[in-house]
Amino acid sequence: MTRYALTLEYDGRGFVGWQRQANGPSVQQAVETAIRAFCGETVAIVGAGRTDTGVHALAQVAHVDLGQAHSAKTVRDAVNFHLRPVPVVIVSAVEVAPSFHARFSAIGRSYRYRILNRRPPPALDAGRVWWVPVPLDAAAMHDAAHELIGRHDFTTFRASLCQAASPVRTLDRLDVDRDGDEVIIVAEARSFLHRQVRNMTGAMKLVGEGKWTADDLAAALAACDRTRGGPTAPAAGLYLTGVRYPDPLQ
Amino acid sequence: MTRYALTLEYDGRGFVGWQRQANGPSVQQAVETAIRAFCGETVAIVGAGRTDTGVHALAQVAHVDLGQAHSAKTVRDAVNFHLRPVPVVIVSAVEVAPSFHARFSAIGRSYRYRILNRRPPPALDAGRVWWVPVPLDAAAMHDAAHELIGRHDFTTFRASLCQAASPVRTLDRLDVDRDGDEVIIVAEARSFLHRQVRNMTGAMKLVGEGKWTADDLAAALAACDRTRGGPTAPAAGLYLTGVRYPDPLQ
Repeated sequence: MTRYALTLEYDGRGFVGWQRQANGPSVQQAVETAIRAFCGETVAIVGAGRTDTGVHALAQVAHVDLGQAHSAKTVRDAVNFHLRPVPVVIVSAVEVAPSFHARFSAIGRSYRYRILNRRPPPALDAGRVWWVPVPLDAAAMHDAAHELIGRHDFTTFRASLCQAASPVRTLDRLDVDRDGDEVIIVAEARSFLHRQVRNMTGAMKLVGEGKWTADDLAAALAACDRTRGGPTAPAAGLYLTGVRYPDPLQ
Repeated sequence: MTRYALTLEYDGRGFVGWQRQANGPSVQQAVETAIRAFCGETVAIVGAGRTDTGVHALAQVAHVDLGQAHSAKTVRDAVNFHLRPVPVVIVSAVEVAPSFHARFSAIGRSYRYRILNRRPPPALDAGRVWWVPVPLDAAAMHDAAHELIGRHDFTTFRASLCQAASPVRTLDRLDVDRDGDEVIIVAEARSFLHRQVRNMTGAMKLVGEGKWTADDLAAALAACDRTRGGPTAPAAGLYLTGVRYPDPLQ
């Protein structure tokens, strides 16, 4: 048996999310189906992050065990062949030790959130950004974001469906920057609660509009109450951009 | 009568190109239909560049005359309202003098061509890049591109359908740069021949693969013969990124 780590890119539109579900096509299922088409093996792959419906990935990581050995490049190219035309691609595949676990071995996740901040709606990036037509003050958002960095009880920014045992997480990075008409949020942590990035983004948008101050954001966090957390930003703007491991995947 | 200059963004997929055609939906038609829905006027808009089937735009410019005056912002927002969900958006609208002509007043056009240069196909950018799985030497492409800069007879890189009176054009800029997995080509000229950017890109790809040298590219140009020009790069990677006028649109 050989274990492979797969780095995956996908367009989240048209999927019910990463995880296999009864109510529609999942990314996990698309990859498992392509693996079966390639080598005949029925496998269950394990992803580092369970992205929601409509959330994209530039570098999700998953692991899979195959009974018959193939070169990692063969796995990558053959599974990609069988994935087409589904918008999921294995960017790279590497052989890893049997002790490697895409989810439990991960020591960091990074996400990017893209806001298109202009009066006209998106044409080229429809479904891939959050369109916010009112002007946002990205510098104020960046300053306020500092209130969320560090180790906190993030109950305020946690989906009610979240299954994590603890609401405490350590947020290592939360940067907000403007690039032309786009406001880009970068978030990094060992792990995130369910919808944490989208909920933090929704609250920071209130800061950007001038409806909330940094103090309001701090007070919302301290309240440990989801109803105090502001709106949830839509899935379309969110990208899982990377997963870190103690031994980097090549 | 008031003349407006419209700056347009669109996703070229699903269109037969900019220009109205009998065989399918055009960008021009989509905008004209939205204008009629907004103000009841039946108009013919004039674009600066006739982008082909599948070619995208970040900043196409068109002009339109309306019998009844509206603020430029009203035109922008109302037409955008009626365009949805078609992937065409008016990024900005400005009132211009009756002498302004989107096509004939233009003194420069710029295009960007995006090549995704990696073994795995695109997932997020399917339909928006040219996928070239063999490694390209972007520096060699950039150096060779120098052979095409300046005033030349570009018959070699001109579509057989091209209706321009002369095959002579002055190419002001042709830069090739690598950004991670992408090779980006930027081309600027007062005007281009039909498919000139895609044909030059197809030839430069041969240089990037090592099949052609810079001398081969120069010889192809000097031959003034389309059959010597190499392949045509696909429309999916091409973006009209800007149109310049003597008096910049605000």
